[in-house]
Amino acid sequence: MLGSRRHVAVVGPAEASERECATAHEIGRLLALLDVVVVTGGLGGVMAAAIEGCRSAGGVSLGVLPGSDRPGRSSVEIPTGLGEMRNALVVRSADALIAVGGSWGTLSEIALARRTGIPVVCVGGWSVADAHGAPVDVATEESPASAVEWVLSR
Amino acid sequence: MLGSRRHVAVVGPAEASERECATAHEIGRLLALLDVVVVTGGLGGVMAAAIEGCRSAGGVSLGVLPGSDRPGRSSVEIPTGLGEMRNALVVRSADALIAVGGSWGTLSEIALARRTGIPVVCVGGWSVADAHGAPVDVATEESPASAVEWVLSR
Amino acid sequence: MLGSRRHVAVVGPAEASERECATAHEIGRLLALLDVVVVTGGLGGVMAAAIEGCRSAGGVSLGVLPGSDRPGRSSVEIPTGLGEMRNALVVRSADALIAVGGSWGTLSEIALARRTGIPVVCVGGWSVADAHGAPVDVATEESPASAVEWVLSR
Amino acid sequence: MLGSRRHVAVVGPAEASERECATAHEIGRLLALLDVVVVTGGLGGVMAAAIEGCRSAGGVSLGVLPGSDRPGRSSVEIPTGLGEMRNALVVRSADALIAVGGSWGTLSEIALARRTGIPVVCVGGWSVADAHGAPVDVATEESPASAVEWVLSR
Repeated sequence: MLGSRRHVAVVGPAEASERECATAHEIGRLLALLDVVVVTGGLGGVMAAAIEGCRSAGGVSLGVLPGSDRPGRSSVEIPTGLGEMRNALVVRSADALIAVGGSWGTLSEIALARRTGIPVVCVGGWSVADAHGAPVDVATEESPASAVEWVLSR
Repeated sequence: MLGSRRHVAVVGPAEASERECATAHEIGRLLALLDVVVVTGGLGGVMAAAIEGCRSAGGVSLGVLPGSDRPGRSSVEIPTGLGEMRNALVVRSADALIAVGGSWGTLSEIALARRTGIPVVCVGGWSVADAHGAPVDVATEESPASAVEWVLSR
Repeated sequence: MLGSRRHVAVVGPAEASERECATAHEIGRLLALLDVVVVTGGLGGVMAAAIEGCRSAGGVSLGVLPGSDRPGRSSVEIPTGLGEMRNALVVRSADALIAVGGSWGTLSEIALARRTGIPVVCVGGWSVADAHGAPVDVATEESPASAVEWVLSR
Repeated sequence: MLGSRRHVAVVGPAEASERECATAHEIGRLLALLDVVVVTGGLGGVMAAAIEGCRSAGGVSLGVLPGSDRPGRSSVEIPTGLGEMRNALVVRSADALIAVGGSWGTLSEIALARRTGIPVVCVGGWSVADAHGAPVDVATEESPASAVEWVLSR
């Protein structure tokens, strides 16, 4: 049934390296092939790459935008006008989260997902340590395929 | 281009008459035929009827849900967890609004759309008068086809 | 106990008549005398008058602002950056709502309050009729004192 | 002027150590003595300690709550019903942020503040490293007094 599709968010910086964009593109493509709705923040960099990968495989993407305009990148776009507060809606829209690369905005999404119990896997990106310097555990995967496999097994 | 599709919201009560549901169904169907994304609050009554009409014509619908669950009615669903505050996001997601029938929730959406300059047309529903009893102008149309024509001409 | 104070919202247009402002000022003053936190949208017109009335009696006011600046009118200000979506937070912050005068923004607040079961009383302002022209019931009072008495008796 | 008071947020986990609570209490007390409105998420642990410290010095506190109830801890309380999404409103309400201790919720607030350019200082808590293991810079201070001095100098 169309409506029961899974939704997975792909998050990452708007200013991303070529390698990060290639990773996000492949993740978007794989999710679309598996009939998963690809949720992003709807802008450039990692987001645009995931949307474009999704589109290349004929998939459906949802852009949860910070502003009040609709750039026309995603299949469906919701211009929330919420600024960076829309990060929480990206997280809420998703059954699981794949983070590619690091930035403060991306970290806020990882933190909100962990706070609310949504599975998160990182491909590259930032790491977190507690007050004693011990690493705070976040799942990591090396490749787009293994990251997609990881989130769909949750 | 897929991404540049217009988005129109169909709003109305979750508890609706058969006639209101038939109207909403036809509006959803016509919008889908015109390649417009049908945005709703994602629940029952007028919303479910518009979604079902959209689906019957192979269209894409976006459900902006008040709760944290995904009922699986719409093509893409965003479980905002915002309660009735999500009404503002339904309005922001839309280039124009068609209201079918009346309720306090529906009236809040009409009022927010008028407040923010988004075109609104009502098919049936509530009317508003100012402190002197003079009607406060809201466009009304009798039929689904004329309502759809009205919003797409804005 | 300080923390257990009641919170009442005073809502109304930013462009208001002298009479509406005088009414809002008196309502703000009376609420402050009764140790009630006066919640508003934090801007001009009816809002500014209610805040000023509250301040004149040494009360505490909360401004729930649409923008990202703090105009410095209220005792405590929360610049939500949510635009008109902050209307829902004004409603949620309040145990009851007093509406003075009419506008689309004010009507959205009345509708959200009625939708979510928060007591509302109007002093002047717009009225609503259903599809058959029958009035949709909203409590009205003539004077500031009777409006304040009405909400505090809920 | 009452309305032009500065607002500083004190953020940290609801389950906190005695030492973290003592730190937050002293920060709340110092901010109140400097006539700063103390903004928190309104719940227990670090939040409750900061509120209590503020109250002990006769200050005004704002609780931006995740739920729809008003626990009665803060001078003014806004029960947003937004869940963890209210973290973004805590950040927006503040001219600067002091984080005491670490948790995913706290990290989301630090990340949003950094993302939006609001000054942040941490007393204890988590640290962040980039993909190459290099520390991502966040200001830290050892004592309540130095943290308060830091934020008020921004």
